[in-house]
Amino acid sequence: MIKCFDKMKNTLKSIKRLIDRSSKTLLTSHIRLDGDALGSELALYYALKDLGKDPAIINDSPIPRVYKFLVREVPVREVKTAEASPPEPALESASGGEGADAGGGAVLSSSGKDKGFDLVISVDTPVKDRLGKVARLFSDPTPVINIDHHPPQADGGNFGTVNWVDTGKCSTGEMVYDLLRSAGWKITPRIAEALYVAIVTDTNRFTNPNTTSKTLRAAAHLIDCGADPTEIGNHLYKANTYGQLQLAARATETMKFFGGKRIATIWLTREMMKEARTPSIDTQDFPDIPASVEGVSVGVLLRELGEPNKVKVSLRSRDGVDVNRVAQKFGGGGHKGAAGCELQGTIEEVQGVVVKEIEKALEEGP
Amino acid sequence: MIKCFDKMKNTLKSIKRLIDRSSKTLLTSHIRLDGDALGSELALYYALKDLGKDPAIINDSPIPRVYKFLVREVPVREVKTAEASPPEPALESASGGEGADAGGGAVLSSSGKDKGFDLVISVDTPVKDRLGKVARLFSDPTPVINIDHHPPQADGGNFGTVNWVDTGKCSTGEMVYDLLRSAGWKITPRIAEALYVAIVTDTNRFTNPNTTSKTLRAAAHLIDCGADPTEIGNHLYKANTYGQLQLAARATETMKFFGGKRIATIWLTREMMKEARTPSIDTQDFPDIPASVEGVSVGVLLRELGEPNKVKVSLRSRDGVDVNRVAQKFGGGGHKGAAGCELQGTIEEVQGVVVKEIEKALEEGP
Repeated sequence: MIKCFDKMKNTLKSIKRLIDRSSKTLLTSHIRLDGDALGSELALYYALKDLGKDPAIINDSPIPRVYKFLVREVPVREVKTAEASPPEPALESASGGEGADAGGGAVLSSSGKDKGFDLVISVDTPVKDRLGKVARLFSDPTPVINIDHHPPQADGGNFGTVNWVDTGKCSTGEMVYDLLRSAGWKITPRIAEALYVAIVTDTNRFTNPNTTSKTLRAAAHLIDCGADPTEIGNHLYKANTYGQLQLAARATETMKFFGGKRIATIWLTREMMKEARTPSIDTQDFPDIPASVEGVSVGVLLRELGEPNKVKVSLRSRDGVDVNRVAQKFGGGGHKGAAGCELQGTIEEVQGVVVKEIEKALEEGP
Repeated sequence: MIKCFDKMKNTLKSIKRLIDRSSKTLLTSHIRLDGDALGSELALYYALKDLGKDPAIINDSPIPRVYKFLVREVPVREVKTAEASPPEPALESASGGEGADAGGGAVLSSSGKDKGFDLVISVDTPVKDRLGKVARLFSDPTPVINIDHHPPQADGGNFGTVNWVDTGKCSTGEMVYDLLRSAGWKITPRIAEALYVAIVTDTNRFTNPNTTSKTLRAAAHLIDCGADPTEIGNHLYKANTYGQLQLAARATETMKFFGGKRIATIWLTREMMKEARTPSIDTQDFPDIPASVEGVSVGVLLRELGEPNKVKVSLRSRDGVDVNRVAQKFGGGGHKGAAGCELQGTIEEVQGVVVKEIEKALEEGP
């Protein structure tokens, strides 16, 4: 335990040293941004600004609508090229968010690598590939700080010069909070707000496993530093659109049960999405609907993608069922409690295949 | 400020003295129990048991389904008589819960008053009337401790021998937590769980106004004392029934907007309730659906009651709009942000009348 603590202390020291030495830092995170990714980036952006540095946030994906209130003052940029995005592994975040669909928009840099960044900080991203096109903006000699709480990936993990990966943490936001505290950097109101959003979203409102008393104490301190839990709650949880709610209602009406009622599925057809005029980003919390039924261990959202016969599957579990393993069987992944994958087939075919695999996982037990 | 603090210290001392002297305490709370009422009662029950006392919890209303996990070991009793309940003022709790509909069941005591209680502790209840039939179980000489965070009522408030009413607190649970801490009584795991439920439900998951850093620090300490936020979250927020979700979907489809889209209404007809085979208690969070729409200041749920042409109206607001004032105009009440009332008329007539009154309130401003 003491050894572990010492190791972390040394890691934090190395991170602080790299930041102290740098002047132009690239802050980035995974494709399909979520609250933890964006909140952690923003907190570091403000902290570096306050230290007199010149940081820039560049992501592969746009900022989801509900998080736009966070970036009132910050130019968060998005890499967009004429090229297609690399194939995405369709991983899912712990909070259940898929973030926005990537692609489209203006070119920020198509050549990359020569932007003059002397440090890269990647947050909330388990493999470099998940940075999407941003990964092309920096080359090997540039030091990379990798701060993340996701479980290690089979390969491509620990891609940083310094890797601070703590799977025991509820969110990357809590880690950034710890970093700021240990470095003695001031937590200003805007840093507090960004970190509160990171923590509250990735813990699914302080309920996901890994939510500890330390998490709530960090949140309490962030309130003291200026985060307003009521205002943040209004932005995050009272910002539904009419179309989104109607679509949720229609999706709820497709609910079916399998595996002795331990599996519940809902689905969204392209037709339904079109009718409700609702972008897929606004369906990010829909997997929580089947997962919220009493007695259900795995909730499933099946969503038809733009490409014909391709279905995005989002899985949510409790009772220790590992849906990451299920998703990985179909080339996807994520967390134990929240994972995703994409499959070829009609929505009913995909439902059949996925349910079968979940039934196996339930039989095997946690 | 110091004066205020001294006053509270004296109040807490008086409360502790009354408890120390008593041996048989009646713990009770308002009709239509919610999480704050039940959690606060239970915490006190366990604390008094641990002190060697002989407490009893008796309420007018049954325990709502989602809270039943809390009372595994405790005989929470319910006063039920053949008589009808007194007319209910249809007040609403801060959390938006209505609790269960009262009535029915076995008689615990029809005579009352002679149960031998030497102390009554009422929690979360602004007027004695709101205790329902339990108010008849004790007579004037019995000392009453009144612990509450609701705004004072026009009359009938401060009905205790000692009144500890703090409208600045997010929940009665947080007050009971403060009492236990100030008295130096041990917070056991079951006390921690009960108080966590009280706080998390009455703050609407740490987002309602009055949620402070102290609230989150109390929650953190309760986790240290044995409350499990993930398990509690599963019980409270992942315990929907199929019928409940289908009913929510159908209610969502009735959504209408008024007052420049600042008011959103949904409704539930008797027919819809019957078809979904869902008790009214399971619709307690439905007013949050219209209130969750971006830009909406007041969300309204209209629900047909058993009695023909009688409609229960539940109001939720933000942006400082005082729906308590609106509800009071129709003989109801509650909090500034969550209130309710009952009106005669068809569901459409009631919608018209209530919307008109809300529009006036919006024009007047907060």
